Amino acid sequence: MKPELKIIVIGGVAAGPKVASRVIRMTPQADVTVIEQGHLLSYAGCGLPYYVSGVVKEQRELMSTPVGVVRDPVFFGKVKNVKVRNATVALRIDRAKKRVGVAPAGGTEPTEWLAYDKLVLCTGARPVKPPLPGVDKLGVYTLHEVEDAEGIKAALAETRAKDVVVVGGGLIGVEMTEALAEHGCRVTVVEKLDQILTMLDAHMARLVEKHMEAKGVRVMTGSGVEAILGRPGDDRRVGAVQTTAGTLPADMVILSIGVRPNTDLARDAGLAICERTRAIAVNRHMQTSDPDIYAAGDCVAVNHLMTGQPAFIPLGSTANKQGRVAANHICGIADEFPGVLGSAVCKVFDFCVACTGLTEREARAAGYDVAVTLTPAPDKAHFMPDARLLILKLIADRATRRLLGAQAVGPGAGDKRIDVAAMALTAGMTVDQLAHADLCYAPPFSPAVDNILTAADVMRNKLDGMLKGVSAAELHAELRSENPPALLDVRTPDEFKTMRLPGSLFIPLGALRARLNEVPRDRPVVAFCKISLRGYEAARILCGAGYSDVRVLDGGLVTWPYDLEK
Amino acid sequence: MKPELKIIVIGGVAAGPKVASRVIRMTPQADVTVIEQGHLLSYAGCGLPYYVSGVVKEQRELMSTPVGVVRDPVFFGKVKNVKVRNATVALRIDRAKKRVGVAPAGGTEPTEWLAYDKLVLCTGARPVKPPLPGVDKLGVYTLHEVEDAEGIKAALAETRAKDVVVVGGGLIGVEMTEALAEHGCRVTVVEKLDQILTMLDAHMARLVEKHMEAKGVRVMTGSGVEAILGRPGDDRRVGAVQTTAGTLPADMVILSIGVRPNTDLARDAGLAICERTRAIAVNRHMQTSDPDIYAAGDCVAVNHLMTGQPAFIPLGSTANKQGRVAANHICGIADEFPGVLGSAVCKVFDFCVACTGLTEREARAAGYDVAVTLTPAPDKAHFMPDARLLILKLIADRATRRLLGAQAVGPGAGDKRIDVAAMALTAGMTVDQLAHADLCYAPPFSPAVDNILTAADVMRNKLDGMLKGVSAAELHAELRSENPPALLDVRTPDEFKTMRLPGSLFIPLGALRARLNEVPRDRPVVAFCKISLRGYEAARILCGAGYSDVRVLDGGLVTWPYDLEK
Repeated sequence: MKPELKIIVIGGVAAGPKVASRVIRMTPQADVTVIEQGHLLSYAGCGLPYYVSGVVKEQRELMSTPVGVVRDPVFFGKVKNVKVRNATVALRIDRAKKRVGVAPAGGTEPTEWLAYDKLVLCTGARPVKPPLPGVDKLGVYTLHEVEDAEGIKAALAETRAKDVVVVGGGLIGVEMTEALAEHGCRVTVVEKLDQILTMLDAHMARLVEKHMEAKGVRVMTGSGVEAILGRPGDDRRVGAVQTTAGTLPADMVILSIGVRPNTDLARDAGLAICERTRAIAVNRHMQTSDPDIYAAGDCVAVNHLMTGQPAFIPLGSTANKQGRVAANHICGIADEFPGVLGSAVCKVFDFCVACTGLTEREARAAGYDVAVTLTPAPDKAHFMPDARLLILKLIADRATRRLLGAQAVGPGAGDKRIDVAAMALTAGMTVDQLAHADLCYAPPFSPAVDNILTAADVMRNKLDGMLKGVSAAELHAELRSENPPALLDVRTPDEFKTMRLPGSLFIPLGALRARLNEVPRDRPVVAFCKISLRGYEAARILCGAGYSDVRVLDGGLVTWPYDLEK
Repeated sequence: MKPELKIIVIGGVAAGPKVASRVIRMTPQADVTVIEQGHLLSYAGCGLPYYVSGVVKEQRELMSTPVGVVRDPVFFGKVKNVKVRNATVALRIDRAKKRVGVAPAGGTEPTEWLAYDKLVLCTGARPVKPPLPGVDKLGVYTLHEVEDAEGIKAALAETRAKDVVVVGGGLIGVEMTEALAEHGCRVTVVEKLDQILTMLDAHMARLVEKHMEAKGVRVMTGSGVEAILGRPGDDRRVGAVQTTAGTLPADMVILSIGVRPNTDLARDAGLAICERTRAIAVNRHMQTSDPDIYAAGDCVAVNHLMTGQPAFIPLGSTANKQGRVAANHICGIADEFPGVLGSAVCKVFDFCVACTGLTEREARAAGYDVAVTLTPAPDKAHFMPDARLLILKLIADRATRRLLGAQAVGPGAGDKRIDVAAMALTAGMTVDQLAHADLCYAPPFSPAVDNILTAADVMRNKLDGMLKGVSAAELHAELRSENPPALLDVRTPDEFKTMRLPGSLFIPLGALRARLNEVPRDRPVVAFCKISLRGYEAARILCGAGYSDVRVLDGGLVTWPYDLEK
């Protein structure tokens, strides 16, 4: 390695500072410069919704080290020996001469050319702004940079925003919905697809939608935005949102329909772009098609470990890992970024919502012979007063018994179980291997058989033919068919009184063996309880008594997304 | 399989009911009988400390299903079709005639013989009661059964117990310490070894001891109990505990020095006993040396996956898994119990204390070339107000780079990270593979680079020679030697003012590059900060400037167990 290796990093938010700092730590004699278009460096973009909500009190916390030192150009110079040029835009890459043309922010022609030995593109992504009529009116925001958050906070402070429409029910959309609801706004989420949070399967997303509705949020799925309308008397300012399902009053609109990778520089330089994702193509060392140019963070396509296909899943966690790999490779340290599982988590009011791997939808599309389970249970020993409901879904491949994906919804600690599932996916484990994992147990932290292990056992019962499930959607459709199955509710009388599926035969589990004659033998039977643990017991009793067509309602009544009789 | 397979299960607490219920679910025509010595069935022994503390309000919650149905003999009969004979003792196994001799509880000769096709021993374990003078005095308790908890609660209610001595600082000892402290008792823990909680390495245990001391508990390690003394005027009742470090006043004594497997029945029947653990030897199907006799739960030796050796680690989580495997094998369903990692967790006041795999001590004893890391960090994005400190220790094998073990201490969510580490151990992952795992990230749940991934990265830096660590114990000894190293504190002036290591050279990290001339070149240097992240940056700066003997204090000042200057 040359003693004065010149490294230029374009982008100073997440991956960029990581690359720069790591290169200097590994190769102190390197000459590292970070070019950043904005004024602010190394800030936690993922924290912006919590800054808007007020959970994070001050802007500077988002760009400080844990001991409160702001990561500004002086910090990078003194502590890291990294030169930072902020408010500077990189306009062109001259690969032949290995130099980057830069100008002060706002410039369109290079005023200076900087030579590099290695160049790292950490140009990030930008929010998609749809070409809607009225999209540029005052009061329409995206949330991507600190300045966006300041704008939204200022508007909230002036109490101009009582009615807010959030366009797009993805991660940022739901996080912003919570932040705005915390400010007392009436929030409507408008989502073009039939569900919010497409990282989940539809019925899991429906549980989140119901939770948001219980918190006073209106969720309009399957609805498109047609135009953003002005305010009577002030057409420059947003006053309403016209959707395919009617017009909504709106003092503020948050556009959160996704982000797109910033690839202009890379494209102009002739670097390979991934067709599928339209993000910069990189190898496992984070090198682009030019081995002297690396890319990392929200601007690159990642290898999805479950599909083997490139994917665009921009996340701060991934950006950090990629930055380290790029820096290591530049410094001659062996390292490879293997790819991602699509793991994600978000807080939605009192719910933790998390997932990893493939959804059922994705797994079916990929051609797997799919088995799924839905397992609601307390997230701690059920006798602990702070135990909270956690609903887990597993997706597995019948052929290999391998886990393919997992989803968690509910107030319980889903992040922990999804991280465990992510490790199982990383190792390519079967559900049998997962079921035997030796996880920590004590009553304040988990049930004796942890939720994820119970879910794996339920899956094994399904794969072994000991448990036939029926989803709520399937059952709902069957109940409207000409030959509906018999519904067998085996809960306690108190539970039955509170709410029930119309037309259910009610026999508490403890009485079932004695009252088998009441259960019809000439029709399919679907057994259930609150979470379908007793439903499963009931189904085994019926099977033992010679019933041949017995299924269990997956997830029980607690995950039933349709109306119940009260 | 014969239609009327007769199964007898001895033991009705954890593994036993699991075996019985699962057998009936898989093989409804089986004839299953559970023999239980006590009156109570299927109770959560692990919940007893929380019943003593009052977190769990009613005894019945510990033996109820999540919907509040008490698991009594009637429940087992009606719901499970399992015959339960409680208050019945199994006295003899006649392997030749395949029958068990039983009697009403208290009996010493069989009054009845029950035939079996398959017998399952779930005889559990019992607390060790040392042969101390005075051990049978009133007020001396163990905590193993519901009756023990009731006795302790009654004594507390009569406010007879202000001074309590807990003998033994294992899991139950520390859980009971917290429960008793919650009642306002003055608790002293007396532990014969040099540390409590031997599932941890000594310096991690010391952090827990300090936390307990901060909560008003006295922790006396390295102290043995010599006798339990009577009360003046009432010698039948405990009044004091005589230890090798003096005599302690005591209104109550809790003996928690461990449990021993109940193997009398198995021994008498000539079944193989594991020499190392003195527990019942079983194969991966949970069969004893007699293939028609199974054993599961606290009475058996388990395969330790990290050592390949049998171990005795009784836990409710393991008992459940083993019960399922035994039942499956009886029913002809393929299943094997692979073994355990030694994963454990407990709540100690505000701390979560967890571990999996080998300790550093165990790994060294097993002959590994060990590397360790100590990584304190907030358990969420540091700008979230509810982020809490989590101290992680990793143990890895230098030769293979494989993870060998992990420990967590602190108020942060250690259980999650240790479960992830347990999955890495299950899969035999290197720390490099662990570092690239795609775990969930959002600010309310983790830092952008999760604590366990940061710990893995720190370990990679150590294995790659980029970071040389020194433990607090090593440094403490070096500072008392003839050639102590120079101490370089790179924190902020405010931090330095609050507390510091005596004799430190203080140069804030941001000033270090400019003030390098102040750092001696003729002595070894140890750099540090609060958590040793800046200490590591400082070490890299010094190495870059040609310093050859630079180390970083593992874990920084926040894990320094000795006195600091204030």
